[in-house]
Amino acid sequence: MDDGIKKIAILGSTGSVGRQVLEIIRVLSNRFQVIGLAGGENLRLLEKQIREFKPVMFYCSIEPDFTCKGEFVSMEQIANHPEADIVVIATSGKAGLGPALAALRAGKTVALANKELLVMAGEIVTMEAKRHQAQILPIDSEHSAIWQCLRGEESKPQRILLTASGGPFYRYSQLQLGEVTTEQALSHPTWEMGRKITIDSATLMNKGLEVIEAHWLFDIPFESIEILIHPQSIVHSMVEFVDGSVKAQLSFPDMRLPIQYALCYPERLPNSELPRLNLSKIQYLNFEAVDLSRFPCLRLALHAGRRGGTYPAVLCAADEVAVGFFLSHQIGFLDIASLVEDALEKHQGITKPTLDEIRQADVWAREYVKHLCVRRPHFIPLPSRERLGEGD
Amino acid sequence: MDDGIKKIAILGSTGSVGRQVLEIIRVLSNRFQVIGLAGGENLRLLEKQIREFKPVMFYCSIEPDFTCKGEFVSMEQIANHPEADIVVIATSGKAGLGPALAALRAGKTVALANKELLVMAGEIVTMEAKRHQAQILPIDSEHSAIWQCLRGEESKPQRILLTASGGPFYRYSQLQLGEVTTEQALSHPTWEMGRKITIDSATLMNKGLEVIEAHWLFDIPFESIEILIHPQSIVHSMVEFVDGSVKAQLSFPDMRLPIQYALCYPERLPNSELPRLNLSKIQYLNFEAVDLSRFPCLRLALHAGRRGGTYPAVLCAADEVAVGFFLSHQIGFLDIASLVEDALEKHQGITKPTLDEIRQADVWAREYVKHLCVRRPHFIPLPSRERLGEGD
Repeated sequence: MDDGIKKIAILGSTGSVGRQVLEIIRVLSNRFQVIGLAGGENLRLLEKQIREFKPVMFYCSIEPDFTCKGEFVSMEQIANHPEADIVVIATSGKAGLGPALAALRAGKTVALANKELLVMAGEIVTMEAKRHQAQILPIDSEHSAIWQCLRGEESKPQRILLTASGGPFYRYSQLQLGEVTTEQALSHPTWEMGRKITIDSATLMNKGLEVIEAHWLFDIPFESIEILIHPQSIVHSMVEFVDGSVKAQLSFPDMRLPIQYALCYPERLPNSELPRLNLSKIQYLNFEAVDLSRFPCLRLALHAGRRGGTYPAVLCAADEVAVGFFLSHQIGFLDIASLVEDALEKHQGITKPTLDEIRQADVWAREYVKHLCVRRPHFIPLPSRERLGEGD
Repeated sequence: MDDGIKKIAILGSTGSVGRQVLEIIRVLSNRFQVIGLAGGENLRLLEKQIREFKPVMFYCSIEPDFTCKGEFVSMEQIANHPEADIVVIATSGKAGLGPALAALRAGKTVALANKELLVMAGEIVTMEAKRHQAQILPIDSEHSAIWQCLRGEESKPQRILLTASGGPFYRYSQLQLGEVTTEQALSHPTWEMGRKITIDSATLMNKGLEVIEAHWLFDIPFESIEILIHPQSIVHSMVEFVDGSVKAQLSFPDMRLPIQYALCYPERLPNSELPRLNLSKIQYLNFEAVDLSRFPCLRLALHAGRRGGTYPAVLCAADEVAVGFFLSHQIGFLDIASLVEDALEKHQGITKPTLDEIRQADVWAREYVKHLCVRRPHFIPLPSRERLGEGD
């Protein structure tokens, strides 16, 4: 970083967040250099990214069918490469856990877009970061907002007000929620995101995962984290201090801002591509307390977070499998929460688990939910609207 | 300050802000010691304050009719007393200018509640502060909000969004504004303040003065300061950074918070007396662009601020005299702006004025407005409602 150029490795570069990370780097190309890219199975996009950004190393989860100058290595090798200044973890699910720990152990700054890692293994991840004096910078609009509000403050926050759009179904009745189709759930009102996180936003599971993430990132007790429904998604979160003062971070909803903030930190750089907020055009911002009764996924997440140990890992894994079933039209919208609840009830939790125990809990939960779905008659879904040609 | 106790001198202790400063000190009495108090003509209140807080020195603008242990000195002597850590300037009008400069020249931290000083002599005051490495800390909800939002930020703000409640008459037509009585104007919807500032809030002159104050406090060009009407007075102001991120400071409207923030800075201390914000109860926050056409005082203030030199001093002085006439029912509500405009038009501005030239401009404007009011027939006011017994 001697020449002021930060060297960036991006794990999950072909996903929604990864692509936006590269958009920022493209605009601020005189400040960043991409040294490693890791994608999944979208080889065409990864190849295109490699041709443009010329990383010295790359990874993909299937055998590459293209040739390039970069070296094919493992995600861990990218994560702890001596040249990397910042490692962006934009993989989904638990795939990023090993590389994230490798990066932290090498003292790298980790820009974290994957919330599952902190949910599953928050204690281990934050302890490793502390031990190796490595920074974890959030890339998530809510956590970036909290981080921005805490900037320069010496005292711990009294309360965190985590905002939630409420998703597309916040006004739905229980009956309407039961009828929600995959296609309806995939159209989020304010954010453009990946498929899994879009469903998690609709069930409010995503907000629950964010609470657990905030707990670990900012070392805040669960009872000091409050969720506020804020349909416009303009205020990305707020922090209340001991004197009663509240600070909020606002912007037009665009993931590129928290991405740029993390990459540039502690600097703020001008970027005309990022939209400006016009509050007199937006006119009003609404806030209301969250209704846990209609959104069981959120209630389950908060409960699993408070119980700690292996429960959050079971929550994550069960949710991922259940959302997968919902995305492939095999279960209904409300079945996601039922499956997750069942897994959490059945699970025999371990306190202060090792990484292996967390991974075992993860595997157990996945298997359990899969079996449940096959075995139990009420998870044979009713014909859903879109398959009857009635999708909106 | 070796024992962690800050020694405070308060100029204007019997006014609205001064009394609230003492409320905070009463609650946080283990952190502050009052070493000087200066009041105006309310001797009973000043005597009571002296008995309670036992300052080593005091001042009042008329001869004291009570005896106490403290020494009667000048405001300047209180302001630059070797023991003072923080000098609170809560006087109104220009009376605080000399003492504020004395405090800054002695390198004191000045907590400034009097906006006229920066409006009249912003360049001189901020230059003296810089020269003597003295800090000016704002005690004003809007400027405290901006200061809190800038905390820890390295880059200059791109834009300041100064919020304004709009005052009690923001929805009034020109005709209705002409009919506004003194009593109506004195009932501010959200803030409890002194009489002069309450009228300035109703004409939006106060917001204009705040723009000029923000310009000097934060070294921001006028074109980067925008006013947003926000009737709830919950968001006290916002800052937009170069990356498009906006930070806002929110709280229940209560002057004690910015007062405590300035006194405790850089610490934040718990104070259960300060109200907590409950956004889900407030439900919504509105914002709209300001309409300069119906509020000529704001337009005049912005214009005087941009012209600089002695114009802002004329603005302040003309407004003070005109508001005085309005408070004593001698002119109508819209006459305030007419008188100020007339004075600004007539004034022969001086650029880079000395303190003497500013004081002369001030004296000239006061005399001019007084003469105008006597001489010109249209300033002989119509009988106003309250004198006809029709006040609300």
